[in-house]
Amino acid sequence: MLMNRVFRYELPTLIEFGIGALQNLASRVEELGGTKVLVVGDPGVSQAGLLDRVEDVLERASIQYVEFTNIQSDPDIESVDEGIRLAKEESCDIVVGVGGGSALDTAKAIGLMLGNSGHITDYVGLNKVPNRGAPVIAMPTAAGTGSEVTVWSVLSNRAAKEKVSIGSVFNCPALALLDPELTVSLPPTVTAATGMDALTHAIESYVNKATQPISECLARQAIDMIAKNLRLAVVQGDNLTARYNMSLASLIAAMAFNSTRLGLSHALAIPLGAHFHIPHGVVNAILLPEVMQFNVIGNIDKYQDIGRIFDGSPNLSARETAEYSAVAVRRLKEDVGIRQSLSDYGVRESDLKYIAEEAMLSGNVPVNPRKPTIEDLMDICRAAMEQ
Amino acid sequence: MLMNRVFRYELPTLIEFGIGALQNLASRVEELGGTKVLVVGDPGVSQAGLLDRVEDVLERASIQYVEFTNIQSDPDIESVDEGIRLAKEESCDIVVGVGGGSALDTAKAIGLMLGNSGHITDYVGLNKVPNRGAPVIAMPTAAGTGSEVTVWSVLSNRAAKEKVSIGSVFNCPALALLDPELTVSLPPTVTAATGMDALTHAIESYVNKATQPISECLARQAIDMIAKNLRLAVVQGDNLTARYNMSLASLIAAMAFNSTRLGLSHALAIPLGAHFHIPHGVVNAILLPEVMQFNVIGNIDKYQDIGRIFDGSPNLSARETAEYSAVAVRRLKEDVGIRQSLSDYGVRESDLKYIAEEAMLSGNVPVNPRKPTIEDLMDICRAAMEQ
Ligand SMILES: [Fe+2]
Ligand SMILES: [Fe+2]
Repeated sequence: MLMNRVFRYELPTLIEFGIGALQNLASRVEELGGTKVLVVGDPGVSQAGLLDRVEDVLERASIQYVEFTNIQSDPDIESVDEGIRLAKEESCDIVVGVGGGSALDTAKAIGLMLGNSGHITDYVGLNKVPNRGAPVIAMPTAAGTGSEVTVWSVLSNRAAKEKVSIGSVFNCPALALLDPELTVSLPPTVTAATGMDALTHAIESYVNKATQPISECLARQAIDMIAKNLRLAVVQGDNLTARYNMSLASLIAAMAFNSTRLGLSHALAIPLGAHFHIPHGVVNAILLPEVMQFNVIGNIDKYQDIGRIFDGSPNLSARETAEYSAVAVRRLKEDVGIRQSLSDYGVRESDLKYIAEEAMLSGNVPVNPRKPTIEDLMDICRAAMEQ
Repeated sequence: MLMNRVFRYELPTLIEFGIGALQNLASRVEELGGTKVLVVGDPGVSQAGLLDRVEDVLERASIQYVEFTNIQSDPDIESVDEGIRLAKEESCDIVVGVGGGSALDTAKAIGLMLGNSGHITDYVGLNKVPNRGAPVIAMPTAAGTGSEVTVWSVLSNRAAKEKVSIGSVFNCPALALLDPELTVSLPPTVTAATGMDALTHAIESYVNKATQPISECLARQAIDMIAKNLRLAVVQGDNLTARYNMSLASLIAAMAFNSTRLGLSHALAIPLGAHFHIPHGVVNAILLPEVMQFNVIGNIDKYQDIGRIFDGSPNLSARETAEYSAVAVRRLKEDVGIRQSLSDYGVRESDLKYIAEEAMLSGNVPVNPRKPTIEDLMDICRAAMEQ
């Protein structure tokens, strides 16, 4: 922590968390003044019957709604445009997002544009949005992105093969309504990938140069909960305690990183995701141990803390415990079944230069505990190709 | 943590924290749409020259203001009424509170009543306030109450010898602007008392039956920072690192307890403070070790954690470490110079029954980890009379 800087911390989103929280949805829509809901969900959530459960709560309270599910797994700008059109045609004045990061990021962007003119791409970057949008209620069905409380929506521009990020306090949902019971049907592969995304958020925020004790304690809490619960959530999908703790850990990690940004893993994950369609959690899981190994000397104390949380032997030195943290995260990743490398997704040596150059532009680079060169970023990717 | 309950967590206040943060005050007044400021401070803050420093920032930005300093150390309802009258006469549309809990609680109540009709006493209790008030910027000059982010204003009704609490999300300041440099001139006795109040917040929230992992990690962080910094802040008032960490710890403790309430120490501190004019931090410091000793068997794990934070020997058993936590807090209290007992403030055996009966009505009792009888509360007070 640097004492010579003024920092900000904010959490504009009200959090409501617990088993059965779904049943409060109708009351919350009414409290937020909503009269007609745009329910935004991805096709997977719809097939799993989760949208029906959400809509059932609205119907029992006689709240009108329209469903929008045309969302791909890397949500694109066209989906957002289509959702906005539908919301306007149907006079929706509140948005309920149900799903993983894709559905929530889309729901947030739609809500935002119901209160702002122009096109969503006018607002790419941090704090470019002038007005509050329609209220958004975010109901995550996966434990990973933390999108339910963050300022960020990450959207794909498929034509340009790029991902764009809109970050604004007005992009924070009015309410994060988390019912861990909604995550129980998530398949093991998605549980593993999204859980590793949450872990990456917590670790990148914790070691970050922009952090402060508020985010630090939240990040440490999230790392601890993920270390103790992710394996169980993957191998015992119906373990409600593990699901509960993973939902909470993902939320807490987002409360930490929302005020700090992240690090090299996310800086690289965004261009790699955009060019090679690697699921966001998977690409972070592949990169994270390599980034940790690179970063260790930038913050040995913090990596030592992480090594201890992952049950590092008390007989190790500080440096050894710090390096052990990367080993422990690699083991977790493998235990939960993520064994791919970047090569498996078609990444080749000839791609590394432009990936590294795109990554270097990310706002997640300056806050990373070790300043990288382009060659460093390429080396991290090389190591992640060979796993 | 109880998995069978839905909990809420919220932080409606934007936090801006750091050395030099005072210099941002004028910009923040403008961003909040304020055109004329009611500056609320207590006489001590005025004498210490802190109000001049605050007003100097406003003057340099040509922002109009009116000063209100008629506040006693247990702020009373009459002060609030007078502040409201002045704000209305002078057409103030924003309130800046500068001081300890008394000034901030008064500033918050004045701001609230600029947007609500009737009298402040109409809104005693939790969530009774219908409307948002004028925006309030809270600038603490002590590290203790955490009033800069809480829903609470505690006000005295001197005629009735009682304290009343107004708790509302609309009573949270719009901005907590914390510049630890403003706490450097705080005398050792006040530093000690306010610091012990912050510790009581953190410990009572941490062991609380209504807590959840968000508040837990914040409370743990605050306990750790107070354990490491309060002595230094008291014996080296100009130690800016210790002041920085105490300001932050007090804030973080409030972020924890705002969603959990507190425990028996605060349940008793309010009536004892009202009847015997014991400074709030002092009465908590006197009660806390006794309450911890009483509570230990209600949550041995949590008290063990606290014992470890206070450097309890690894050779102790869980129960021994838990009991050691009360010993460590008593030592801290004595190290920082709080050696009074309740008797020194005129509390007599014949007072204990009505004090215990008033305490029993507090919302801080049901969340305490051990359910007390009236006799238990009297026993705690008896122990605190003999110290
Ligand atoms: Fe992520
Ligand atoms: Fe207090």
